[in-house]
Amino acid sequence: MGNTKIKKTQNTVRILIDCEDAKGLIYKVSKIFFERDLNIDSNQEFVEKDCGRFFMRTVVSGDFSGDELEQSLLAVIPATAHLQVIIAKKRKIVLLVTKESHALGDILIRHAAGEFDADIQAVIGNHKNLQQLVERFDIPFHHVSAQNLTRQKHEKKVMKVINEYQFDYIVLAKYMRILTADFVDSYPQQIINIHHSFLPAFIGANPYKQAFDRGVKIIGATAHFVTSDLDEGPIIAQNIIPVNHRFDWRDMQKAGRDVEKSVLSRALALVLNDRVFIHGNKTIVF
Amino acid sequence: MGNTKIKKTQNTVRILIDCEDAKGLIYKVSKIFFERDLNIDSNQEFVEKDCGRFFMRTVVSGDFSGDELEQSLLAVIPATAHLQVIIAKKRKIVLLVTKESHALGDILIRHAAGEFDADIQAVIGNHKNLQQLVERFDIPFHHVSAQNLTRQKHEKKVMKVINEYQFDYIVLAKYMRILTADFVDSYPQQIINIHHSFLPAFIGANPYKQAFDRGVKIIGATAHFVTSDLDEGPIIAQNIIPVNHRFDWRDMQKAGRDVEKSVLSRALALVLNDRVFIHGNKTIVF
Amino acid sequence: MGNTKIKKTQNTVRILIDCEDAKGLIYKVSKIFFERDLNIDSNQEFVEKDCGRFFMRTVVSGDFSGDELEQSLLAVIPATAHLQVIIAKKRKIVLLVTKESHALGDILIRHAAGEFDADIQAVIGNHKNLQQLVERFDIPFHHVSAQNLTRQKHEKKVMKVINEYQFDYIVLAKYMRILTADFVDSYPQQIINIHHSFLPAFIGANPYKQAFDRGVKIIGATAHFVTSDLDEGPIIAQNIIPVNHRFDWRDMQKAGRDVEKSVLSRALALVLNDRVFIHGNKTIVF
Amino acid sequence: MGNTKIKKTQNTVRILIDCEDAKGLIYKVSKIFFERDLNIDSNQEFVEKDCGRFFMRTVVSGDFSGDELEQSLLAVIPATAHLQVIIAKKRKIVLLVTKESHALGDILIRHAAGEFDADIQAVIGNHKNLQQLVERFDIPFHHVSAQNLTRQKHEKKVMKVINEYQFDYIVLAKYMRILTADFVDSYPQQIINIHHSFLPAFIGANPYKQAFDRGVKIIGATAHFVTSDLDEGPIIAQNIIPVNHRFDWRDMQKAGRDVEKSVLSRALALVLNDRVFIHGNKTIVF
Repeated sequence: MGNTKIKKTQNTVRILIDCEDAKGLIYKVSKIFFERDLNIDSNQEFVEKDCGRFFMRTVVSGDFSGDELEQSLLAVIPATAHLQVIIAKKRKIVLLVTKESHALGDILIRHAAGEFDADIQAVIGNHKNLQQLVERFDIPFHHVSAQNLTRQKHEKKVMKVINEYQFDYIVLAKYMRILTADFVDSYPQQIINIHHSFLPAFIGANPYKQAFDRGVKIIGATAHFVTSDLDEGPIIAQNIIPVNHRFDWRDMQKAGRDVEKSVLSRALALVLNDRVFIHGNKTIVF
Repeated sequence: MGNTKIKKTQNTVRILIDCEDAKGLIYKVSKIFFERDLNIDSNQEFVEKDCGRFFMRTVVSGDFSGDELEQSLLAVIPATAHLQVIIAKKRKIVLLVTKESHALGDILIRHAAGEFDADIQAVIGNHKNLQQLVERFDIPFHHVSAQNLTRQKHEKKVMKVINEYQFDYIVLAKYMRILTADFVDSYPQQIINIHHSFLPAFIGANPYKQAFDRGVKIIGATAHFVTSDLDEGPIIAQNIIPVNHRFDWRDMQKAGRDVEKSVLSRALALVLNDRVFIHGNKTIVF
Repeated sequence: MGNTKIKKTQNTVRILIDCEDAKGLIYKVSKIFFERDLNIDSNQEFVEKDCGRFFMRTVVSGDFSGDELEQSLLAVIPATAHLQVIIAKKRKIVLLVTKESHALGDILIRHAAGEFDADIQAVIGNHKNLQQLVERFDIPFHHVSAQNLTRQKHEKKVMKVINEYQFDYIVLAKYMRILTADFVDSYPQQIINIHHSFLPAFIGANPYKQAFDRGVKIIGATAHFVTSDLDEGPIIAQNIIPVNHRFDWRDMQKAGRDVEKSVLSRALALVLNDRVFIHGNKTIVF
Repeated sequence: MGNTKIKKTQNTVRILIDCEDAKGLIYKVSKIFFERDLNIDSNQEFVEKDCGRFFMRTVVSGDFSGDELEQSLLAVIPATAHLQVIIAKKRKIVLLVTKESHALGDILIRHAAGEFDADIQAVIGNHKNLQQLVERFDIPFHHVSAQNLTRQKHEKKVMKVINEYQFDYIVLAKYMRILTADFVDSYPQQIINIHHSFLPAFIGANPYKQAFDRGVKIIGATAHFVTSDLDEGPIIAQNIIPVNHRFDWRDMQKAGRDVEKSVLSRALALVLNDRVFIHGNKTIVF
């Protein structure tokens, strides 16, 4: 009995519920927390009226068994609900990069400071030039060149390297190659990308050149989950900075890097904290 | 019986709870909604950990008696709780102004478009020059000159005019006179001011001149409830715009007006929608 | 002689030069100012490197004849240069509107405060509901219904009304009809529009609905000159505000209005101050 | 002669002029450029009307002798003018840090990518915990503990270490100790600090705690030159992010770090590009 108590003591879990809306959901769920004498450390919920869909994220702490809690919750929410009872822990991530260091570097510095709830397993680059930076942080770097390879063959080699690691998320930290549907479908809801424009503006290649040609007065960046539709996946975070006629496209690119890295890191932190629900091609972010 | 039904049908109320935190509050409150088969149109809650204080704002609709609902809620929340069950309706406001028209004008245009849940009862100015603008909108304007009057005597005259009207809030739309503690204490939590700086920077007279002298690169505006501590009341909303060395203080003032008016109107909309809790010298804004 | 002196005294003009770049332009132009003992109140220039194009805006004051100054400048700049020597004065504008009052209202309030260097000649609406607002400000309102008319026939009627006025610019203050190339070509570089999205995202109808469907986290507005390419004209100003999953498309629309009106008014002020050069489908804004 | 030509060929210099305003300055300066057939790569000037002070930054390229150009310029500008003719090159910097890695890390990553025109000579920390990070980048780290030392004695030790290096600027990358006037006066206009608030709000210790206590809705950061007046030196750059009631002071601190690092890096880039004039306690930033 003492053992049981120790086992149960001071759990903290994140509870994520994603289901069709129904009357009494908050009541039924909070009843379970109340009956177990749990502390609600934070709680947010949202009903998407268009689809009649209910989203709830609650952090509870106290003496309880996670399994028993999960079973109790499953008994009161719709059978088709998506329920997660998550013990906060470091997630495992791998990163794909190309040549630019800003997004990768921002993640490495935060990682080294223990700011992210994540362990970086490895970085894979289709060029070699970020190897030194990655290895400075004692993280494995794998160079998988795409030279003279079809997209499919290159991805096969990348996947072989990735799959040697355990990971929760793949982060594209300015990985400048388009992924095939095959690759994307292998890691559903696991790939996070930073797109160097304020989507849906300037989809596709060289958005800064497009932005310059269009004469915009603001540029931006978009972090999103990757789906098989290029640049059309659920948006997690966006931000912008003003530009003016004095910016040529390389100035825009340079200025844009600061936005890119901060947006990607913010999105990644949200995902790692289980704050992001995917809902069709949108997100609910608590 | 038919009558009762008609009386109860299709109520929508905003429920605001502000009390010391305790376990089970969400459960107990949502139980009441569930038992009455109410729709929860929106719900947000927050616990201020420092003080252990619980804030909840819920909009519910359905067939119910507001009085009965209120009594039921009072039975489950702490005795010292502050509970409001509010039927959404147009609030009555009076405005105090001086010479500048931008904040007043923004409110008048929104009011004319039916955008605010408010009826403007009257505008009182210590100068005459906004009379024409106000009267274009068929709203009473009262000129109460401060010339040759002590602050106390002038305020007495202003209060006399104000008190002829019924009102929920007094909005200081760039009213450039300092109010006495007597005046402020007469209308607790009812006076909303726009301060032309990013508080707490540049408290006091001519903030734009102060900002210019300090060489700041950003200026701002702050909407807040007025308390007897000058510029120290609970902040409702703030916003900023970048400036640079090309701005002299009059340019800053001009640029600042756009921020002032948008911040004041945003704060006013929040207050009129019962989205703002006052908590010491802070606000909780849902 | 005395007359000549009076005629010349204390002129202030804005000089705008737009020409192919060449060495010595600043030297040759500033020499002319120096030789005439003029004060340079402000000066900005820019070379667009891609096209090798030079833009200069200088405000000079002093004793001089505008005609003589213009001739002297023409003698030193390339023959193909576009030179304007402009005496600051109120421009005449007409506005086209539909049903929404926010952009129009913001312009009316600024106009009434003398903030714009402009006289509003008239407002033309394809609906009647803004008539009262316009007439509150003693400005002519013309209702030109589009009902049962082809686009061409309706525009012909609008043009007939517009052409009864003298005007420098036509401002589309949320005019919700697409203009034909014929209409646009009749007023080249004279039509300013506010588009309710962050162009080039969400071109076309109901951008807020599009933004909602795409799940963006930021919405924006774009003021631009109108060309015959729909929503593709030179951008003058843009701004954005953050949104989140709690915003349905009507909430986005409502929030967007504040951005729309401030962006349009800012763009209009820039144009009225002769601060905007059109360069292909871009602008140089000093 | 060939030698002379090679020596002169393809110089590019930044010319900075800071002097009392006078008629004809632009003319006289641009005449010198024209007579030497120089290209003006960029040019900005500004007259601070209050003080009648003229600031000009021009980048010119071509075949010329820097010394001769400097002498020619000195001959046409006021005797009291401050003139700099600068050949763009990497500046040397040293950094002072305490415990937090975000500002330092951002500079290290940019430095490693060659983004800054700077060579980091050394990092000095009053704590040891950033040693590993710095050494990952093969940069010397010096630990100078302040334990059991008076402020004066500690600074003396820091200065001894610093003075072993050649440097143009000292960057306080979240150095959490107050500097004495003696220290500051030893490096006039050379010390750049990041203050973790939107100055002049929340001067002094723990600005985030102050911001939390005040209930602000926006927090910010300020990069400035350090003078002997604490937090009163000329501001180079500022930025902000919105916060709300859900942020306790540690959340504000965490969110603030992203603003701090981006503002410091931006300010540093501006200074390294000779874009910042100091003018009393303000800056002109081109």
